[in-house]
Amino acid sequence: MKVRVHISLKPGVLDPQGRAVHHALEGLGFKGVEDVRIGRTISLTVADDTNDEQLDEMCRKLLANMVIEDYRIEKVEG
Amino acid sequence: MKVRVHISLKPGVLDPQGRAVHHALEGLGFKGVEDVRIGRTISLTVADDTNDEQLDEMCRKLLANMVIEDYRIEKVEG
Repeated sequence: MKVRVHISLKPGVLDPQGRAVHHALEGLGFKGVEDVRIGRTISLTVADDTNDEQLDEMCRKLLANMVIEDYRIEKVEG
Repeated sequence: MKVRVHISLKPGVLDPQGRAVHHALEGLGFKGVEDVRIGRTISLTVADDTNDEQLDEMCRKLLANMVIEDYRIEKVEG
């Protein structure tokens, strides 16, 4: 089973990497960019009998930093 | 307009960060994890008149490293 975990900074948390990319896009001449935020996507291939609770636990214990990040689990197949 | 750019390593490119996460998940006792790959998601808020060509150019020039990474553009609104 393929699972994608989308991890993003919580609203309000400063994103210096996003600001740097925003600045660089403007430097390259791209107009109209209003905001840039950067997150991670973790693509997991797990056994088919892995349940939602286990996936949640992986996110809470390791994949996401729950203090500053949100996560969303998306099942890609099966 | 909100746009998400999903950036992932091309198949075959080594992903040491993914391997480290895989190893850590096993260390925490999670069974059945077969593969872990890590990518980036860049969430952009851009002017509504930004066209696909401009978005493509942003990816090719700055957001993705075309030698080792693939990108996919997803429009979230509008």
